Amino acid sequence: MSSGVNYTRSEVRQMAGYVPGQQPSPGSRIIKLNTNESPLPPSPKVAVAITDVMRNDSIMRRYPDPQSMELRRIAARISGCQSSQVIAGNGSDELLRVVLDTFVEKDETVAFFSPSYSLYPVLTRIRGGRIKSLPLFQEGSIYQPDTDGIKLFFLTSPNAPLGFSFSNDYIRELAQRLNGILVVDEAYADFAGDNALALVHEFDNLIILRTLSKSYGLASLRVGLGFAVSALIEQLDKVRDSYNLDRLAQIGAQAALADQDYLQKTVSLVIKERQHLSAALQDLGFKVEPSQANFVFVTPPQGCLAVDLQAALEKSGFLVRYFSNPDLAHGLRITVGLRSEMDQLIDAIKNIG
Amino acid sequence: MSSGVNYTRSEVRQMAGYVPGQQPSPGSRIIKLNTNESPLPPSPKVAVAITDVMRNDSIMRRYPDPQSMELRRIAARISGCQSSQVIAGNGSDELLRVVLDTFVEKDETVAFFSPSYSLYPVLTRIRGGRIKSLPLFQEGSIYQPDTDGIKLFFLTSPNAPLGFSFSNDYIRELAQRLNGILVVDEAYADFAGDNALALVHEFDNLIILRTLSKSYGLASLRVGLGFAVSALIEQLDKVRDSYNLDRLAQIGAQAALADQDYLQKTVSLVIKERQHLSAALQDLGFKVEPSQANFVFVTPPQGCLAVDLQAALEKSGFLVRYFSNPDLAHGLRITVGLRSEMDQLIDAIKNIG
Repeated sequence: MSSGVNYTRSEVRQMAGYVPGQQPSPGSRIIKLNTNESPLPPSPKVAVAITDVMRNDSIMRRYPDPQSMELRRIAARISGCQSSQVIAGNGSDELLRVVLDTFVEKDETVAFFSPSYSLYPVLTRIRGGRIKSLPLFQEGSIYQPDTDGIKLFFLTSPNAPLGFSFSNDYIRELAQRLNGILVVDEAYADFAGDNALALVHEFDNLIILRTLSKSYGLASLRVGLGFAVSALIEQLDKVRDSYNLDRLAQIGAQAALADQDYLQKTVSLVIKERQHLSAALQDLGFKVEPSQANFVFVTPPQGCLAVDLQAALEKSGFLVRYFSNPDLAHGLRITVGLRSEMDQLIDAIKNIG
Repeated sequence: MSSGVNYTRSEVRQMAGYVPGQQPSPGSRIIKLNTNESPLPPSPKVAVAITDVMRNDSIMRRYPDPQSMELRRIAARISGCQSSQVIAGNGSDELLRVVLDTFVEKDETVAFFSPSYSLYPVLTRIRGGRIKSLPLFQEGSIYQPDTDGIKLFFLTSPNAPLGFSFSNDYIRELAQRLNGILVVDEAYADFAGDNALALVHEFDNLIILRTLSKSYGLASLRVGLGFAVSALIEQLDKVRDSYNLDRLAQIGAQAALADQDYLQKTVSLVIKERQHLSAALQDLGFKVEPSQANFVFVTPPQGCLAVDLQAALEKSGFLVRYFSNPDLAHGLRITVGLRSEMDQLIDAIKNIG
């Protein structure tokens, strides 16, 4: 009998297995500033809504709404569009995969800037697409890439890990020039001064992705949202897993989206602490990239290597993110946390220096 | 500017959109026997575990375990295998898709008996595979199909909607003859006298799928499990969405799986009511297929058309399942419910007759 594993598609067999991000063990006293989670818990209305379901748990034996209609309605209402222009996913990660499965045929080209989200090449490989990885800067500047032959373009805005936003003029020009689908992955847009959501009313080849994992403090719940013209949403809807969001994820996300005051409170706090952290690090001689997100990318002063600082901070009880990629190895990405966490971090950096 | 929807892959554009199953409106007094949900709520330990998380909801801002390790460990323990032989999915629907993406290249052949689960052809089409739909019986009998050129075979056992199980001897022979991957979809196996789980230790091209949607009363939670040799699980793990199960789904599923006494209580009740319903319908002249599942497929007595009976029952407040497929249009599939529900159903049928 032949070995069953040999039936694996060659693209999949050649891929490395997924390596999960560093997570502190439960109960450890580490301050976790490496995965851009919210410093605040989600809106208390989430816990109220989910606890309510658990009080009448017989409903759990029933299938949830496969279409997440109520969630789409609320998302549409707060975003100024129709619910037919919204899709809900099991995290925006599912929506990235669904976009690939909907539009990209084997050997078609998928483009993105490097550095950006490391899941894009993984999902493209699984789909069997060709990867076109573009340098983020040409001669030190953002530029409009050559879009010839590109079927799908993933643009992360605000960019991770650098934190800057692409302007709506830039996005308009790219959408216009692209003979394919443009996905603007706006995971961090709630922390930015502007966003591209309104452009879905201008372009029928544009998909905007959002997530509840960052600004809503719900990374545990795995809920992402996609916005586009109804005709595109209709195609994406055929491809997503048919019951892709469980009842508690739907109920929790509805409660979180409905509480926009709480979102604003979180966003204001993060922006304030981002300014505080940036100023404090600049005082210590760090170069700080201006950020529109809930993290800052910083380069330590001359004589201090980022990789060494990351290791020293870990010993002192702080997780921050170091990328070995040559374009990023000079710096560190630090998630914005509470004032007390930021002050402890600054003290630790002073002690290391 | 060209219309963005034209970038859709032809397989997807030609597909019909997903049509969700019939769901009674909230608060309606209908007795729902059409989608094989459990007549009992889930184990009360599920609500306790999820409510506990909500009491300390700050954890919700953190990413969940991307590997669902604790859930895999519990599933492995109660199934007599290693946790490296288990994968957890966002419903077994996600695992069906993951299996296709892992093993099936464009234009390779995916086979299944018809009738079986209507999602198989949909997912195969999205993947770009060729569909080989095989008649369930040849000259009235189950048979071993010609496996030439088949890369992936989906076998539903117990079969839906007829309710019979394929024997382990049958499954062994099919796994041996198949030059590809055999998936045995055991959504209803907890209600059956036997199952094929132990065969994953014999065959390295066999994947067994289970779900918590039926016997565990957790259709709302979207948790499925896959069992196979570790080498296959490793490949599937690369392809699933990387954070595919949210924290509450993991915690709830762990609590449900750990409460095997409660599972046995549910299963015993369903088997007892399956016998009661079968006998009562036979007394009324129905032909009842012997069932190993939580439903029965029944053919009304001569002179009563299944399609008419379904409509009359709906008017009387009962949802049962009618299939227009010519092989099934003579009968109805009825989910086994509580004794009171079954007695009301029998009374309604008597009144209609």
